[in-house]
Amino acid sequence: MARKKARYSTAKEMAAAQREISVAEFFAKNRHLLGFDNANKALLTTVREAVDNALDACEEAGILPELTITIDPVRTKKKDGKQLLLKGANGKARKGFGGASRLTVSVQDNGPGILREQIPKIFGKLLYGSKFHRLRMSRGQQGIGISAAALYAQMTTGQPVLITSRTSARAKPHRYRIGINLAKNAPEDKEVDVPASEQVPQGTRVELEIEGRYQRHGKSVDQYLKQTAVANPHARITFRDPEGEQVVHERVSKALPEPTREIKPHPYGVELGVLIKMMRDSSSRTVKGFLQTDFSRVSARIAKQILKEAGISEGYHPKTIARDQADNLYEAIQETKIMAPPTDCLSPIGEKQLEKGLEKEFDLEFVTSATRPPTVYRGNPFQIEAAVGYGGELPADEPAQVLRFANRVPLLYQGGACAITKAVAATAWRNYKLSQPRGSLPVGPLVIVVHMASVWVPFTSEAKEAVANYDVILQEVRRALQECGRRIGVFINKRKRIADEARKLSFITLYLPHIGIALQEILKLTDKERDQTCRKLERILERTRKSS
Amino acid sequence: MARKKARYSTAKEMAAAQREISVAEFFAKNRHLLGFDNANKALLTTVREAVDNALDACEEAGILPELTITIDPVRTKKKDGKQLLLKGANGKARKGFGGASRLTVSVQDNGPGILREQIPKIFGKLLYGSKFHRLRMSRGQQGIGISAAALYAQMTTGQPVLITSRTSARAKPHRYRIGINLAKNAPEDKEVDVPASEQVPQGTRVELEIEGRYQRHGKSVDQYLKQTAVANPHARITFRDPEGEQVVHERVSKALPEPTREIKPHPYGVELGVLIKMMRDSSSRTVKGFLQTDFSRVSARIAKQILKEAGISEGYHPKTIARDQADNLYEAIQETKIMAPPTDCLSPIGEKQLEKGLEKEFDLEFVTSATRPPTVYRGNPFQIEAAVGYGGELPADEPAQVLRFANRVPLLYQGGACAITKAVAATAWRNYKLSQPRGSLPVGPLVIVVHMASVWVPFTSEAKEAVANYDVILQEVRRALQECGRRIGVFINKRKRIADEARKLSFITLYLPHIGIALQEILKLTDKERDQTCRKLERILERTRKSS
Repeated sequence: MARKKARYSTAKEMAAAQREISVAEFFAKNRHLLGFDNANKALLTTVREAVDNALDACEEAGILPELTITIDPVRTKKKDGKQLLLKGANGKARKGFGGASRLTVSVQDNGPGILREQIPKIFGKLLYGSKFHRLRMSRGQQGIGISAAALYAQMTTGQPVLITSRTSARAKPHRYRIGINLAKNAPEDKEVDVPASEQVPQGTRVELEIEGRYQRHGKSVDQYLKQTAVANPHARITFRDPEGEQVVHERVSKALPEPTREIKPHPYGVELGVLIKMMRDSSSRTVKGFLQTDFSRVSARIAKQILKEAGISEGYHPKTIARDQADNLYEAIQETKIMAPPTDCLSPIGEKQLEKGLEKEFDLEFVTSATRPPTVYRGNPFQIEAAVGYGGELPADEPAQVLRFANRVPLLYQGGACAITKAVAATAWRNYKLSQPRGSLPVGPLVIVVHMASVWVPFTSEAKEAVANYDVILQEVRRALQECGRRIGVFINKRKRIADEARKLSFITLYLPHIGIALQEILKLTDKERDQTCRKLERILERTRKSS
Repeated sequence: MARKKARYSTAKEMAAAQREISVAEFFAKNRHLLGFDNANKALLTTVREAVDNALDACEEAGILPELTITIDPVRTKKKDGKQLLLKGANGKARKGFGGASRLTVSVQDNGPGILREQIPKIFGKLLYGSKFHRLRMSRGQQGIGISAAALYAQMTTGQPVLITSRTSARAKPHRYRIGINLAKNAPEDKEVDVPASEQVPQGTRVELEIEGRYQRHGKSVDQYLKQTAVANPHARITFRDPEGEQVVHERVSKALPEPTREIKPHPYGVELGVLIKMMRDSSSRTVKGFLQTDFSRVSARIAKQILKEAGISEGYHPKTIARDQADNLYEAIQETKIMAPPTDCLSPIGEKQLEKGLEKEFDLEFVTSATRPPTVYRGNPFQIEAAVGYGGELPADEPAQVLRFANRVPLLYQGGACAITKAVAATAWRNYKLSQPRGSLPVGPLVIVVHMASVWVPFTSEAKEAVANYDVILQEVRRALQECGRRIGVFINKRKRIADEARKLSFITLYLPHIGIALQEILKLTDKERDQTCRKLERILERTRKSS
């Protein structure tokens, strides 16, 4: 077969070669699209997907999150019986994999657990989940994350993921080994017994064996968890690294994020194609009813107005609307003034919370924050929060440290491509007494936090590393930063004045005695008179200083 | 429902919300991942996907490609009977869509056509195709492209694509209207009659109605087709733009690209997870047979060697290999020296062809090109070709124009992120008498062409806009450019010398008469003697100049 001389093919032969490609096969071959392009990033992405899901689950269930993350080197018994760290199965570093080694990643949460019958699909099938089809703020949104991590584990170590879940202290715990059938994009799962002796807490534990490289510094798991703690002050996060060192990010607030509500799509955010599909799927019997029930912010009055503009009578059945009419309907929607979507689908971190989180992880002299009112891009509600910390141990001569968050998830990669970084650089920090090289980040002892909360964050890739550059998003970030900037400016000014005063005061106390002696000689004062004069002088100078 | 106060949910409620997400729904919501993020790019991407498929089909069938691309504004009859250009159905520009208008894109080829039963799936189903599962060079590789364009058309104009195909002049032509069922990722097709009167040529015609914006300059369809002509000198491409202007890129070579052969995967390119899957799916009865038949470059000797290293006996049935053994097998493969994969799966453009293509589209003084021997990244064969054109109408004081190609497809976006651009900037052009600002592109009247041919181009996104930064790829590009650079350097030197000579010569002819007159006075020569002396002098000077 491989010997055959290459030649041209006929339409028939080409047709015979046509095949379906499963989404699992696609992402297995393109795993860099999901953030698994190198050993460091693959480890970080794996941890992130598991942690995001854990936090989402806890919050949806109204439970204060308590997470334990461990990363352990995989050890293997060798002939001589010695345990040794596995760098590739044979103790040598894997070729072309940057000295990665095998690691077991485990994430345990105290969440609501997962119903037995759901476990296999959630971890063993890509594009499966509860978050893609709803308009509601959550960390996960695409239904790829954790199953992609499982896929990566299988590709690199051949090991299935191990899931242990318990929905309550009274419920029976369940444990599954789950692999992914690439061709079918379907789970290959096997339920395994949980020994009666084992104490299984309520919640879910995910264990994956992957090729990865652990590093403590830079874009590391440590950095990711530290930032996660900043954006989630209500979570308690324990991390044990491969060397066995343990870090605990304590909870600094018992306030759970407000539960968010799922909203209907806003008319402005819907494209013609989707509109047509919605009408076809609608259960309403009239197009007017359809507009009112299937969208947010469409009152009877607005619905009438839209249909009038579109020249469609209200009684029509949505399924009978022809494409051209749908087209007019779409246009009419764009022409009609419709109230912005409701925003209780969003749950910002909140100014106080954000400041608490920041102070917990950084030692600072001054912290301020600003939360913008919610607004909309392409029909999707979103809200920007920012906080700026100043001074303390932060280096004075380096560019500001920028922490980017989307729905409370830290974004560590692709900073250059991110709307948030662009907006920070586009803010005029000079106005706030900070130095800033042309078009780049401000320089000084600064940490800048920006959080975008939205029902649908427009990421630039499936890896969810950077926010796409929508003007309205850039603008909102800039405004939030300007609010913080002004307060920082005031603080810096004040600090400067205090320093000046201190200097003046020291001059006075230094020279006054000498002046006193001089006066005494000139005016022939007694020592008593001299001291009185000095005291008077001092008081006067004090006053002028204050007023200056 | 939307009135209900938001509250927390139970594991049961969360489970109820779990749903499958179709890949069509996923990409509809994330269409920017496929290159449909704005109106300009969407038009370009649509044309590109159709053209790539047309060229692939023609070449696979051994037909010299002849393509006709037209872009027409969609006009609509208004009450007053006047035809008008449609900017959105109501003549106004669409909100939030940068003044895009509706365009009909049509691409007709003279290829082998498509069998009737295949038409709906190819255009109406994402992740379906003949190119993903094979290791063989072609423009398409992911099975997303053209169906993504159809999806985009449906989303923005609600119109199905119209496909007309005829497999030969004798065969009956077929015509389909094809939409995509988002939830099912399945075609919704309807066969329509082709009027007997209509002259349907052999080949395939794709017609899509999309929201787009046509621009003649910058990253435009014109630019894309011009570059396509450079990389495909064997193709004849006709383009009629919305204003009705027509450009024809004539064929400058009748040589079709060598037909490429599909190869087996190379052992080095296979990950553990894939290895396990291959053993499970293998039809071989022994693991030794499996290694020999399912991989390229594995002889009986190599197979023995691998199995020895892995400590697996040759007779084992591949299906019986346990995971740990598979692991050892994987390691053993990495440890064994295996010949590089065969390269008749690649079909480079070729130096002469590339130069022809370049000279066709640019007016140049000098062209040179270099084709590197094939090599391998992560087990995938690839080959780099480069060509550099100099002088002519190219601006002398601007950075070189860089044309990037992957499997003969021009890459217009994401240049900054592309390995090719990085390699051009990393080449030391100063050595070749060209000016080059530190770490950036050379400056001068230069056009640089780089082509990567591979069975699997590692793109940084589904939009296929940039080549990922593998060291070996960067290195190969640099080497090809150095070859070209040296020749350019020689040319520039030579040109300089000729210029100098010309200047010298002009001096001689300018001053010789005066010298003659001077000599005549000093030596009291007759006019005849004077002229002889001058001629002698001239001859001597000529000689010295030549020798200098």
